[in-house]
Amino acid sequence: MSESRTSALKYAQDHRERFLEEFKDFVSIASISTDPKNKPEIGKAAEWIADKMHGLGLTNVKVFPTQGHPVVFGEFLTTAPNSNTVLVYGHYDVQPPEPLELWQSGPFTPEQRGENMYARGAADMKGQVLASLNALEAVIRTGKLPVNLKFLIEGEEEIGSPNLEKFIIEHQDLLACDVALNPDTGMLAPDLPTITYALRGLAYFELCVYGPKQDLHSGQYGGVILNPAQALCELIAGMHDAHGRVTLPGFYARVRPLDAEERAELARLPTDESFYLEQTGSPALWGETGYSPTEQVGARPTLEVNGLYSGFTGEGAKTVLPAWAMVKISTRLVPDQDPDEVYIQLSNYLKTNAPKTIRYELTQIVGSRASISDRTSRGVRALEDAMESVWGERPLFRREGGSVPVVNSFKNILGVESVNTGFSLPDDNLHAPNEKQHLPTWYRGIDTFIHFYLNLGG
Amino acid sequence: MSESRTSALKYAQDHRERFLEEFKDFVSIASISTDPKNKPEIGKAAEWIADKMHGLGLTNVKVFPTQGHPVVFGEFLTTAPNSNTVLVYGHYDVQPPEPLELWQSGPFTPEQRGENMYARGAADMKGQVLASLNALEAVIRTGKLPVNLKFLIEGEEEIGSPNLEKFIIEHQDLLACDVALNPDTGMLAPDLPTITYALRGLAYFELCVYGPKQDLHSGQYGGVILNPAQALCELIAGMHDAHGRVTLPGFYARVRPLDAEERAELARLPTDESFYLEQTGSPALWGETGYSPTEQVGARPTLEVNGLYSGFTGEGAKTVLPAWAMVKISTRLVPDQDPDEVYIQLSNYLKTNAPKTIRYELTQIVGSRASISDRTSRGVRALEDAMESVWGERPLFRREGGSVPVVNSFKNILGVESVNTGFSLPDDNLHAPNEKQHLPTWYRGIDTFIHFYLNLGG
Repeated sequence: MSESRTSALKYAQDHRERFLEEFKDFVSIASISTDPKNKPEIGKAAEWIADKMHGLGLTNVKVFPTQGHPVVFGEFLTTAPNSNTVLVYGHYDVQPPEPLELWQSGPFTPEQRGENMYARGAADMKGQVLASLNALEAVIRTGKLPVNLKFLIEGEEEIGSPNLEKFIIEHQDLLACDVALNPDTGMLAPDLPTITYALRGLAYFELCVYGPKQDLHSGQYGGVILNPAQALCELIAGMHDAHGRVTLPGFYARVRPLDAEERAELARLPTDESFYLEQTGSPALWGETGYSPTEQVGARPTLEVNGLYSGFTGEGAKTVLPAWAMVKISTRLVPDQDPDEVYIQLSNYLKTNAPKTIRYELTQIVGSRASISDRTSRGVRALEDAMESVWGERPLFRREGGSVPVVNSFKNILGVESVNTGFSLPDDNLHAPNEKQHLPTWYRGIDTFIHFYLNLGG
Repeated sequence: MSESRTSALKYAQDHRERFLEEFKDFVSIASISTDPKNKPEIGKAAEWIADKMHGLGLTNVKVFPTQGHPVVFGEFLTTAPNSNTVLVYGHYDVQPPEPLELWQSGPFTPEQRGENMYARGAADMKGQVLASLNALEAVIRTGKLPVNLKFLIEGEEEIGSPNLEKFIIEHQDLLACDVALNPDTGMLAPDLPTITYALRGLAYFELCVYGPKQDLHSGQYGGVILNPAQALCELIAGMHDAHGRVTLPGFYARVRPLDAEERAELARLPTDESFYLEQTGSPALWGETGYSPTEQVGARPTLEVNGLYSGFTGEGAKTVLPAWAMVKISTRLVPDQDPDEVYIQLSNYLKTNAPKTIRYELTQIVGSRASISDRTSRGVRALEDAMESVWGERPLFRREGGSVPVVNSFKNILGVESVNTGFSLPDDNLHAPNEKQHLPTWYRGIDTFIHFYLNLGG
């Protein structure tokens, strides 16, 4: 190991106490983005990060106002020639802490118990933001940073980042980079460092089926009218075949097949049948024939019913034949599916299958593509090697079933892939009471980023 | 026509002005049964009827208190030997009048416009109650009543008669009769007098399907869990076949087939395809293959979805994989189906078809059998002849798709069939603003009851 690398790691080790104090200071700020009455705390958290950046000697530090909560930017430019530029993404806002009575210590009164630091935002993701800045500090206080680092820390992630895309579009030059680092995904266990190289896309729809002009008496009219709720159920039932496959015509046409190498890589993940049974409490698993649970969630597209409504849903009995029925349906997409094409596929399915005895209306609500990073790209390799240096073994490569919109924004607007990782654990109670950060993992996270920055230097 | 019959009819004709004044007086009372603040008006309406009975010389007149609104009883016993006893059913309560702004005149300020009297309760069913009492008056003021007449007029029909069955059970001797007359059904057009000889029964269920122990993120888990809403839709979709028949095993086993004579009788009804299209505004009709719309609604059993609920039903998108899904399902039954057997049939269907990847819970909420009267019984013949005397042609025989619980109570507790009729019309706006009674039809109704009472005398 090079001398500068060793010095940086030693610096990080020597300053753990202060890092921890700053961690506690940062998570004491109740920067809840949903609640307008926490606006001052949001401002305080943004300023806290900007001050931290100033203290580290970052340049171009600015708290950008938006229509909502501010975006904090800062950068540390290297003098090394031909250097890479990394854009680190993070957010300083947190989820609301309710229900408060379930917290063992106050959500904004950080308390260390055993190896964990308990506080709202500890893992999601103030701890991750600090790890990336602490790693920078360790490198620049002991040697020379061989890459350009830019930090974009937003304040609206927990409310869907309504102003972020606009900000990225308006500041493309400022944010220009070669690769993005997004430490908001996390790892599967303390001994299983994880790189999330793919995220599913989303196409979300609302479908309304209309029958009679108004609710009817189910006795006086039942028998001559196709019940819109029944028609809707029949349409939904037809959207999967007996093998758990989605029947929309052309749905799988663009789906990138999994090769043997990637399947072998995914098979290393511990997300097997027993994992999902325990996590969900379902009586049994279900899914597309021919794929493992890990593949079913991460690497295959799905269609879900998110909501259903029709007629009378109160206590007891009301003999209504409903005038209409509604379903919220979403498809999770994998490369290279296109949400707008899925809209057309669903439209075509309905055209073919909807009976003439009803009318229907289909609306697309959300559409985002899946994202996937080249597992052999420079950024991914740099992180893979960094993790191997810290843990002594290769990280797991995960495909995440959910969607992280900022990854798409970076891809679409800035043209860069994101390397997604993080040092939160499945039992860290993200979005729940008693959120915590596992500190030994956090320290390894700081070390990982030190290696990552240095690896990207060459 | 016998002299006494002619005199009675003439008496009715001569007293129309007074009958109408009393009609207006009765419908001026806002006897809305749902609203506790109308309790005094309910009491006033009950007393109004009791006073009317006293005035006509009925005996045993009593306003019986119940847990809810009172039941009014009175009887007029004949001295004729071997005479029949008819129990006339009615209700003095009315639906709420809202929305008030849609009424052309006040709901409790009766106004005659053209041939119609507008007021809440005019057709449903204060007018019908008065017709039966006016007919009695005409007969007894001009001659001798050849039957025993008993009147049971309740005050809770519009809220589901919660205390009526208990009252009937406790007063079986008082209510003992040979046939019941229920003038709460109505006729299809002013020139189409109608006898409703059959009503469908009802078996109402709630089915809940459970999957994961809590709502899940549809991205993180979509693909390995059978979505409970999807599972429910598939179960519902399987409940009908391509011919519109219900697939529950054994569902049709006890269904009494229609013979050619009854089908010919039903074919006389004007409830054809264009009738149902106009009434419902549906794009097209639907139903069990091989039956006319009239038969589908009146003489065949059906299964309807009355309500559906699962997951997220608000505005926009929430990517939830719901923990559960619920449906309200009801079956309309015909003779000789048994609601408890239908519960077993539905249970068996679920046992066979529900996948092991979900759990479910089925609850029966309501169960009542269909009712059917012998179209050749003395009571039905007496009414048929009465209508033919008044209109000059045979009445239509209708099977009604809805259920009238009191008909079952009379059958089960008193052991008597009901002859169901009435002089309201489809456009009389029952339960809606601008309810009205068509007065020429109402006068014919009084005449019909005069004939009916006299016909039953022999």
